[in-house]
Amino acid sequence: MQIYSYDHLYKFTHAVFKSIGCSDEHASTATTALLAADVRGIDSHGVARLTGYVRLWEAKRVNAKPDIKVVHETPSTAVVDGDAGLGLVVAPFAMQVAIDKAKQAGTGWVSVRNSNHFGIAGYHAMLALQHDMIGMAMTNASALVAPTFSVERMLGTNPIAVAIPAGEQPPFVADLATTTAANGKLEILQRKNADTPLGWVQDKDGHASTDANILKKQGALLPLGSDREHGSHKGYALGSVVDIFSAVLSGASYGPWAPPFPAYVAMPEHMPGKGLGHFFGAMRVDAFRPAEEFKQHMDNWIHRFRSAKPAEGYEKVLIPGDPEREMEQVRKKEGIPLVDSVVQDLQEAGARFSLSL
Amino acid sequence: MQIYSYDHLYKFTHAVFKSIGCSDEHASTATTALLAADVRGIDSHGVARLTGYVRLWEAKRVNAKPDIKVVHETPSTAVVDGDAGLGLVVAPFAMQVAIDKAKQAGTGWVSVRNSNHFGIAGYHAMLALQHDMIGMAMTNASALVAPTFSVERMLGTNPIAVAIPAGEQPPFVADLATTTAANGKLEILQRKNADTPLGWVQDKDGHASTDANILKKQGALLPLGSDREHGSHKGYALGSVVDIFSAVLSGASYGPWAPPFPAYVAMPEHMPGKGLGHFFGAMRVDAFRPAEEFKQHMDNWIHRFRSAKPAEGYEKVLIPGDPEREMEQVRKKEGIPLVDSVVQDLQEAGARFSLSL
Repeated sequence: MQIYSYDHLYKFTHAVFKSIGCSDEHASTATTALLAADVRGIDSHGVARLTGYVRLWEAKRVNAKPDIKVVHETPSTAVVDGDAGLGLVVAPFAMQVAIDKAKQAGTGWVSVRNSNHFGIAGYHAMLALQHDMIGMAMTNASALVAPTFSVERMLGTNPIAVAIPAGEQPPFVADLATTTAANGKLEILQRKNADTPLGWVQDKDGHASTDANILKKQGALLPLGSDREHGSHKGYALGSVVDIFSAVLSGASYGPWAPPFPAYVAMPEHMPGKGLGHFFGAMRVDAFRPAEEFKQHMDNWIHRFRSAKPAEGYEKVLIPGDPEREMEQVRKKEGIPLVDSVVQDLQEAGARFSLSL
Repeated sequence: MQIYSYDHLYKFTHAVFKSIGCSDEHASTATTALLAADVRGIDSHGVARLTGYVRLWEAKRVNAKPDIKVVHETPSTAVVDGDAGLGLVVAPFAMQVAIDKAKQAGTGWVSVRNSNHFGIAGYHAMLALQHDMIGMAMTNASALVAPTFSVERMLGTNPIAVAIPAGEQPPFVADLATTTAANGKLEILQRKNADTPLGWVQDKDGHASTDANILKKQGALLPLGSDREHGSHKGYALGSVVDIFSAVLSGASYGPWAPPFPAYVAMPEHMPGKGLGHFFGAMRVDAFRPAEEFKQHMDNWIHRFRSAKPAEGYEKVLIPGDPEREMEQVRKKEGIPLVDSVVQDLQEAGARFSLSL
């Protein structure tokens, strides 16, 4: 384990993105989006993935100089074609289109095709907050999740993020994979050689499993709810909505045909659309009621929920976004810890471009 | 148990709504919305609740002659004040506003205050389908759900419904309470004197419980995910988003202050808004890509998921909406079964207006 300052990781990551051919502006956009994950404590989606993006570029699945554009629009909607660019660049572009639409029409909704992984959904949703807008972001992803009653991997962990501004309170920021546990949680257990709780994964025959390596043995992640009796059909439905909004609406590749993140995994045959898909929304708060009034009520909402009576053994009730914001305060001050395997991976990738971590 | 034809229940329900003072048009709208639940097999939300609505009217919490109106709007948004009307009447009005907005601006988003329970969310979302639009509906409700780490009931079962049109395949219709199990499931177990599975409810101290009557003993329903380890913070976040979109955006009463459905339960003190809140969305499919193209891909999506390899012991993978549609075919032909307590309840309510079931 080594600790790096945010600025140090920023410079290194920016230089790597420049080295693969990104413009200075795109490298900045991508670096800020990627490191937002590390800063907020979602280590699986941050700089640990940088070499994965480089490998996708090597495999010519990522275009470092994309011509990202709006290909269809109405007053409150648009479809963006990412030209196979980094999702880390395509997503902020598309979110800005949604915000601009919302300024004019009250809300803006943008479906994106021909993109790649975009880091954490919450970062993109939060871009709306500074405009007194509610932001939403979702994306489809490589198929690792079996629908209820199935053994076949049909959906990604397909996250939904919703960011809602408040007044004196910090904003409400929900960012959730539509599975019981995100893939990153399995990776942490793998490193510790530990088992998963029951209800996170199943084996290739659909039986309950606690093997954190089960995805390498044709097993699958389970939808939020774990099993039918506990509502896994709801997690499956939510993951499906994310897939459809992100990829069927835009013309990206959906369901089991979503492009895989690891560059060594072959692309699916007969893909029904282009690349990964995302979906973004921005709603002007004052398209519904005066912004100050809304924010006062959000403060009241947050205050009331924060003071809900805690269960025995728990100190307090959390508001979605609390843990990540607390982590952000710590890591901006004390730095970002990276496990040795990630450090080594980054050093190797850096060496290729004569960059040292 | 007795079986009634749809037409028979329609006439009776329509007459009851007329008897409390609804216009002929409102009585028709409310009856169609209410019975959509019975027809689709969601017995807890259908005609079994008719007497509950009558009691709310008796308690002057429901206005049978509401002046429902748009009080604020932008090209893609509106806020509707339901004037304390039946949610069964207010919701279709608001959904129509969303659909009309979508015709002009591509999408329409309507937040509603000063309403009451609206039956099943899926019915309202499905109103968009005939316009080649994706429909969304959500509502807040009486607080029965404890957030993760809490023993206090802060949220309703706050459902989310999403209806998506297809071509030759039937539409995709997800309609899910953001809890592990809906309250109606507990009512069924209570009638059978049966226990709940672990993970549905907790007792007043936050301990795991299998008591189907626990809500009468200050227990609470659990958010989708059941416990922290299985993602209950995600169900809590989703239920919170529903509460905020439905009630904080519109100016309805939110969180633990949502008005209770049973007329004998006192209204909360210091309500921060008016009545219950709902949130509706309509997105024109061709605001993103040509409708025929979208529907062909939805057919492909549905076909692919329906043919996903089933787990041992299961016949096939279902598409959200399949069970309710199959039930609809059966009940339209064979009638709607009502348990004796519901029949008796309806007979008593009918007698009051000289109506026989």
